[in-house]
Amino acid sequence: MNKKEAIRIYKEFNEKIKAYTLVLNTTDIDRLTVAPRKGSAYRNRMLSIIEGELFELQTDKSYVEAILFLSETDLGEIGNRDIALAKKSLENILKFSKEETMEFSLAMMNSYEAWYDAKNRNDYKIFEPHLLKLIEMSKQRLQKRNPKIHPYDLALDDYEEGMDRKKYDLFFSLIKKELLPLIRKIDKKKGYIDDSFLYRYYPADKQAVFMKDIMKYIGFSSEWGCMALTEHPFTDALSRNDVRVTTAYDEHNITSAIFSLIHECGHGFYEHQIDPKYDAYPYLHQISSGMHESQSRFFENYLGRRKSFFRILYPKLQELFPENLKNVSIDDFIRAVNVSKCSLIRTDADELTYPVHILIRYELEKEIFENKIDLNRLDQLWDEKYEKYFGIKSGKASDGILQDVHWSGASFGYFPTYALGSAIGAQILHKMEKDLNVDDLLEKGKFSSITAYLKKNIQHYAALYSFEQILEKATGEKFDPNYYIGYLKDKYKGLYGIK
Amino acid sequence: MNKKEAIRIYKEFNEKIKAYTLVLNTTDIDRLTVAPRKGSAYRNRMLSIIEGELFELQTDKSYVEAILFLSETDLGEIGNRDIALAKKSLENILKFSKEETMEFSLAMMNSYEAWYDAKNRNDYKIFEPHLLKLIEMSKQRLQKRNPKIHPYDLALDDYEEGMDRKKYDLFFSLIKKELLPLIRKIDKKKGYIDDSFLYRYYPADKQAVFMKDIMKYIGFSSEWGCMALTEHPFTDALSRNDVRVTTAYDEHNITSAIFSLIHECGHGFYEHQIDPKYDAYPYLHQISSGMHESQSRFFENYLGRRKSFFRILYPKLQELFPENLKNVSIDDFIRAVNVSKCSLIRTDADELTYPVHILIRYELEKEIFENKIDLNRLDQLWDEKYEKYFGIKSGKASDGILQDVHWSGASFGYFPTYALGSAIGAQILHKMEKDLNVDDLLEKGKFSSITAYLKKNIQHYAALYSFEQILEKATGEKFDPNYYIGYLKDKYKGLYGIK
Repeated sequence: MNKKEAIRIYKEFNEKIKAYTLVLNTTDIDRLTVAPRKGSAYRNRMLSIIEGELFELQTDKSYVEAILFLSETDLGEIGNRDIALAKKSLENILKFSKEETMEFSLAMMNSYEAWYDAKNRNDYKIFEPHLLKLIEMSKQRLQKRNPKIHPYDLALDDYEEGMDRKKYDLFFSLIKKELLPLIRKIDKKKGYIDDSFLYRYYPADKQAVFMKDIMKYIGFSSEWGCMALTEHPFTDALSRNDVRVTTAYDEHNITSAIFSLIHECGHGFYEHQIDPKYDAYPYLHQISSGMHESQSRFFENYLGRRKSFFRILYPKLQELFPENLKNVSIDDFIRAVNVSKCSLIRTDADELTYPVHILIRYELEKEIFENKIDLNRLDQLWDEKYEKYFGIKSGKASDGILQDVHWSGASFGYFPTYALGSAIGAQILHKMEKDLNVDDLLEKGKFSSITAYLKKNIQHYAALYSFEQILEKATGEKFDPNYYIGYLKDKYKGLYGIK
Repeated sequence: MNKKEAIRIYKEFNEKIKAYTLVLNTTDIDRLTVAPRKGSAYRNRMLSIIEGELFELQTDKSYVEAILFLSETDLGEIGNRDIALAKKSLENILKFSKEETMEFSLAMMNSYEAWYDAKNRNDYKIFEPHLLKLIEMSKQRLQKRNPKIHPYDLALDDYEEGMDRKKYDLFFSLIKKELLPLIRKIDKKKGYIDDSFLYRYYPADKQAVFMKDIMKYIGFSSEWGCMALTEHPFTDALSRNDVRVTTAYDEHNITSAIFSLIHECGHGFYEHQIDPKYDAYPYLHQISSGMHESQSRFFENYLGRRKSFFRILYPKLQELFPENLKNVSIDDFIRAVNVSKCSLIRTDADELTYPVHILIRYELEKEIFENKIDLNRLDQLWDEKYEKYFGIKSGKASDGILQDVHWSGASFGYFPTYALGSAIGAQILHKMEKDLNVDDLLEKGKFSSITAYLKKNIQHYAALYSFEQILEKATGEKFDPNYYIGYLKDKYKGLYGIK
């Protein structure tokens, strides 16, 4: 095999792999948004067959040889990174047989169905056997992939290259030390800010109208993206110009869909703004979760919870819901959407308590993979953590262990990237505020200047560099979580009149 | 190869083929409903790659051998029919190379994009080159598939086994002879029935609420089906328990979405009610278009346009649109939705003029494939036919040649099955009225008794028999289009007080 031949084979297979990925992802989006439930069993079985076909391609001898050959040659900075990521991906795939791959894929899809039912019926017992099976499978898979690395360290690295328990322990100890005292102080000031109007009745069909206003304001265009409904919001990009965001309505919580949609639009823009020159490098499109969450949480919080963001949007919201908001000023509204309280639902949490929701999941996952807990008590352990950190009890599994979709997809190690991403975002924000007059742009509806800034400094790179490298390029500094801590302390002390 | 081995191979390949079909169909539904436009070029290219993969499977030597072997053995009535259909399908596929198959598939998908743009911009020139290319490709393909049969006869047989120009000529000459004089007589009585209130402003979001009422009344369950929006309504079943119907709203025509949805639900029920014992026989699921349209047009017209159908539904419609319908009685409403007039849009046409819309398309297709017309004047020829039969001129390509999606998918030969299906349906209706008190069931909301009847007499068979065989089993008589003619004459003479 020579370089030219290897490149030809590599490209030829990549085209097919991309095609399989497109139809699988499309069917996945369909499955998670509109597909009727009774078709699940058949659909999932058929999907696992296609997963098996994809496996055959990915492990084809000539493709494997081409990747191994190319990983020893110089393809320039972009090509080298693409091949390095391809090789890393390949090494993991090759550890398993086709049957194991199909079985794991089917277990995850069926687990989603069980989770969906369990959540909707508030019955953890429906989901429990699926969850325990996925934990067991994941432990075995991680062990098999690399017996020299602790399974949870490997899982953490899967979602954010370079991260492990040691680094996250340090990060979360800072969260605990610096934020928990403030969280408790603020929790004692319950009622200091009135947010009761956010929880009145907001019919879904009228919320849907406001979603369009948000997307228009942000510049999320129907030419290259669309929105669907789902049980647990997510974003998936089928290509740069085919970005799918999703949302879910809570008719007694107007903030839920709003901030969830803004969050997903952050993910969506990231995918849309990848430099077209990477189109030929498929593995560069596998952006790490921490970086991805840095952008989604940037939209959701660092932009979305500002008064300036709502200057144009809030009158539209008032017009849609005069019965609830006519007498609520924009200042009252903004204060209300920033209320901090110890609560049960991660996705609805304020910025300050949010990293503790993540800490709870991180601790649980660590204990699971360190074999330190009784897996038959997982739902109770979840509730106990919430009681320990927040002093509140769930009582409902659907507000406890069943609230998040991630474990049903065996995404162990994903949660920490939400907090990491928030911290990355805070550092980017600090730099952006020096370069741009953010509030002025938001007030004037010039959101495109902000997305252009994020494209230029962060998003266009795709996965060419690690999050630490991109962050250093964007801000001129190494990753420093103190920007995050500082931001949260300043914001919430100010909001609650604490010195 | 022995029988056992052949069956094993046949089943093994069928599983994979079903899996490919599922992801391709899902992506197709996605493409035609929600997918953003800018992703089309990439998406279509990827889809054609998967079409190529499917082709490889379908033409795999061992699969082909298994089918040929099994077609010479006795597999019982069900198995024999399945294999016969498999063999027929295979013979067509084998006539083309993988590249030709992918090219044709890509040409159709890109043609859809062009049609969509052309229709929305009312500019036939955007679509024309695509259409002419598809006509040329289709001519060549039909010729190549079987040089002994006239290409259009072959196309007609593709959509309804056993049909050809000779049979359709007879059928349409009956339509012309028996119905055209009545159509012209009624057209002179313009204004005899007031239907102006149907064309007031009906906002789409409120129409959407009524769509749910219709589906509930019909018993189209969200457990096994769902509805999406599209440019040109269609139905696709991913499996018996995964049925997708679509609709489109015209905010100045309340009947458009209503009858289109009832129509699609007819298709949907057909797919849902196939006997589960045929799950293992994939080719039995390829129900012919005429039979399919007999059920959809049965729902739409023979049931949907009755007063008894609207007894429960109409008050809901009035409640949604009091500004338009408060003072319109159910009798006035039913008379209005049955108004007959020479009009431009097939899908919005009344039952009486409908077969003439089809006749126009049949004549055009026949002339195209008999090379009798100037293809560069197709849009004008379309308009000239409408002038000839209806005495009206379109003036807008989007109301003329661009109105229907079919040709963008090279579905030449499909249109005639709409009229054939209507005629089949009329014969079924005649028998059903003897067996059931249809109006009583509809008035009491017992729609399930009707779907049960259709299941038992028609739908459960899937493609086990030809339409003529199923019709004979269901009605005890051979196919006789005079039931259709008689039904239309009686109904419209009565409605317009003509003796």
